[in-house]
Amino acid sequence: MAQNDSLSEFLQTAVEAAKRAGEIIREGFYQTKHVEHKGLVDLVTETDKACEDLIFNYLKQQHPSHKFIGEETTAACGITELTDEPTWIVDPLDGTTNFVHGFPFVCISIGLTIGKVATVGVVYNPIMDELFTGVHGKGAFLNGKPIKVSSQSELVKSLLATEAGTKRDKSTVDATTNRINSLLFKVRSLRMTGSCALNLCGIACGRIDLFYETGYGGPWDVAGGAVIVKEAGGIVYDPSGKDFDITSQRVAASNPLLKEAFVEVLQQSE
Amino acid sequence: MAQNDSLSEFLQTAVEAAKRAGEIIREGFYQTKHVEHKGLVDLVTETDKACEDLIFNYLKQQHPSHKFIGEETTAACGITELTDEPTWIVDPLDGTTNFVHGFPFVCISIGLTIGKVATVGVVYNPIMDELFTGVHGKGAFLNGKPIKVSSQSELVKSLLATEAGTKRDKSTVDATTNRINSLLFKVRSLRMTGSCALNLCGIACGRIDLFYETGYGGPWDVAGGAVIVKEAGGIVYDPSGKDFDITSQRVAASNPLLKEAFVEVLQQSE
Repeated sequence: MAQNDSLSEFLQTAVEAAKRAGEIIREGFYQTKHVEHKGLVDLVTETDKACEDLIFNYLKQQHPSHKFIGEETTAACGITELTDEPTWIVDPLDGTTNFVHGFPFVCISIGLTIGKVATVGVVYNPIMDELFTGVHGKGAFLNGKPIKVSSQSELVKSLLATEAGTKRDKSTVDATTNRINSLLFKVRSLRMTGSCALNLCGIACGRIDLFYETGYGGPWDVAGGAVIVKEAGGIVYDPSGKDFDITSQRVAASNPLLKEAFVEVLQQSE
Repeated sequence: MAQNDSLSEFLQTAVEAAKRAGEIIREGFYQTKHVEHKGLVDLVTETDKACEDLIFNYLKQQHPSHKFIGEETTAACGITELTDEPTWIVDPLDGTTNFVHGFPFVCISIGLTIGKVATVGVVYNPIMDELFTGVHGKGAFLNGKPIKVSSQSELVKSLLATEAGTKRDKSTVDATTNRINSLLFKVRSLRMTGSCALNLCGIACGRIDLFYETGYGGPWDVAGGAVIVKEAGGIVYDPSGKDFDITSQRVAASNPLLKEAFVEVLQQSE
């Protein structure tokens, strides 16, 4: 593990990168309704790419020896293996569908793993101007104020978040709605925001009590949020109850009190 | 229909009432995580009641001859029949579950019907500081800027909002998830915010393309939002495609281009 002063330096770098990319996203967000000369798909792709370039260039400039994994570069070059080296895992624009529609749950997610452990997390929603941060051993914050997970211990009083995902084959959709059906008998209600990283931050600040998602894009969706959840007193795990694997595209999160009961319902509805 | 100058006066009254109630909601919203001496249920009930009292007192002071329908008074005194008289229909706190959990989709909804036609609508989210307004024949606005529904014409590119509701008997839950299952094959994705009034406003400003909900609380959930949708160029209708009945606890909304295809899918999944 790096020294604490390095970690706070890494955090500052990530916050600065996220804020700069946030300006690009904010600009594009308010343009999506008025795209005329070029197509909407182009605007999304360009925003995504411009943000990733900006973030990677900035991080590389500050920390030239570090490794980098991003959605855009992975799409272009294939998956980069996660090593023990300090590695920045970046989603330059989480919530692409929301971005296109002008639905205000979009964010930049930046996570730093050291020894494969997620150590620094920054998730920034530039539309609602909410900056979530977390550093291993140093707590989690929303716009600089400490946050913690909810103290809820009963499923029946818990607010659940999940997502419909992007796959539309019959078996995936049936599995999604069957699971929602089972869960609705157990929890208070259900929210779908369209951003995996912001759902994790919702757990961290106690807005949401339970979250699970399977089949999301990749480690960039969860690397930043996972640190923030843990530092807010929460836990991140595989929906089966096993250890969370950042490369598995399967995530669940809650406070520690709810895990056992949540996993039991998730398993029943598998 | 009242004169235009009366309508703009009615709008001003409603905006002022909503802003004042918004202060109470904002205060309670940031307290819910720290309720100790009195229970959370008390805080919700007190906030709800304090907002309704404030709004009704203010509106009655300005417009003593008008009629009033509100969630709290209806719970206490039974349903008040909607007449042709100018009638204020108020939900002092839409999104109660969100309020309890600190999830930022909460609002005040105020609608005025004249001759049973929804004529003035104000929906205010005091957490995100978003004020949606609409006046019959005068357009719809978000924080003073004109808004319009999306121009989307294809279901497959549309963002859908609905809610899981509060009923948890097997037939209601099965109907809800079966319908979601059918819709997921037809639309781009699904959002659940937990506020019926804000979903209608989401349609009005084009963040969402399609919305339906059945079994919500009452006319106070839709009276304000319905005006705003119509004035933004949208339409509000029964999920069967028939005319919208404000007292029916059944609502669908979209731009006019999507209605036929949306109703067809809703009917298939009935």
